Amino acid sequence: MDNIRLIDLNTEIFADNDNCAEEIREQLKATNTFMVNVMASPGSGKTSVILSTIDQLRGQFRTAVVEGDIESSVDSEKIAAAGVQAVQINTRGSCHLDAVVVQKALQGLPLAELDIVFIENIGNLVCPAEFDIGESFKVMILSVPEGDDKIQKYPLMFTVSDALIINKVDYLPDEGFDVERLRSRAKKLNPNIKVFEISCRTGKGVKEWSQWLASQRKTKAKWPTLI
Amino acid sequence: MDNIRLIDLNTEIFADNDNCAEEIREQLKATNTFMVNVMASPGSGKTSVILSTIDQLRGQFRTAVVEGDIESSVDSEKIAAAGVQAVQINTRGSCHLDAVVVQKALQGLPLAELDIVFIENIGNLVCPAEFDIGESFKVMILSVPEGDDKIQKYPLMFTVSDALIINKVDYLPDEGFDVERLRSRAKKLNPNIKVFEISCRTGKGVKEWSQWLASQRKTKAKWPTLI
Repeated sequence: MDNIRLIDLNTEIFADNDNCAEEIREQLKATNTFMVNVMASPGSGKTSVILSTIDQLRGQFRTAVVEGDIESSVDSEKIAAAGVQAVQINTRGSCHLDAVVVQKALQGLPLAELDIVFIENIGNLVCPAEFDIGESFKVMILSVPEGDDKIQKYPLMFTVSDALIINKVDYLPDEGFDVERLRSRAKKLNPNIKVFEISCRTGKGVKEWSQWLASQRKTKAKWPTLI
Repeated sequence: MDNIRLIDLNTEIFADNDNCAEEIREQLKATNTFMVNVMASPGSGKTSVILSTIDQLRGQFRTAVVEGDIESSVDSEKIAAAGVQAVQINTRGSCHLDAVVVQKALQGLPLAELDIVFIENIGNLVCPAEFDIGESFKVMILSVPEGDDKIQKYPLMFTVSDALIINKVDYLPDEGFDVERLRSRAKKLNPNIKVFEISCRTGKGVKEWSQWLASQRKTKAKWPTLI
């Protein structure tokens, strides 16, 4: 395999992506819309966290969701069933969302009438961490049954995320998950990361996380491009 | 982004990969070594399943493990601690193993003295499904806390796998996981797939799965190239 050419192409792909991400950021600034990139493994509860958060923010913010999946519209159907506007992206094989597909999806939403757009990225702890999609904010979810050692295996995801949501804490105590060890490793890798412990099943911690997200929205902080 | 060039490059990458996968298959045939490609999400229990299986096969087969991770040697340390030979691959960003890196890893193992080599792929339900690494056999693991809807979101993984291990059945019953619905969808997508229900924590089902794997090894079946 010709590695040198691969590296060149990668650089080009990232440059194109980052230009597009900047366009998205300008557009969101113009409409004053906050965009949250939600990343996690398959099955860690991305859709449930988004739905619980939207429920907490109801009446306070106008929200919508862009659902990224390889195939199917299972998740956007759940979102729509909750009365929230959803756009489904099917990547047909690609393991992450990039700025180009997100830009297309955003064309399907009335941004001027929206305060917060959640982007549910593809279930993957690897490549989504590498792509700037023009978001205001990156949040990752790690669920208790996955084990606390994921930070050693997928450090980039923990490094680039503004917030880490530990989901499914109703499974605690669990011999494979030490919350304090994970917190300490996360803070070492990324001193600014905010860590939340929640359970969408019991509702624990959802309010605290949602209120913090709301406060971030209100400060209208513009986050630096991370790639 | 120049999509046409991307597609060309993909074709080239897959052709290079498949040539290398064929070389690996020839090599394994020469040493009569069975190679099992183990794929799953992060945290679904790949290392635990491999260790439990090796434990069941002890005395019957000589085994070794190639551990694929983005970073860290957490898993190969667990394997080595169980007295089993391990080779760690750190892909430094790549979200799947390809035949080229697997070939390099196999050079670190005495294949002529090994009956079964387990390859623990990167935790990801997407790209690992697309790469032939010269394996005799593809097995995927889905754990109960991930939810049974993963088959609708990541159908390729279920389509290319020879066996589906449902792990962490000690979490059952779980409102998000209907084993019979998953079995029926898996069989529809891939009529030849073998489905096992196991728990590495309680030991349930590990023997049945391991015995079946052993029977596959004994028949020395050569599997068609899947890509």
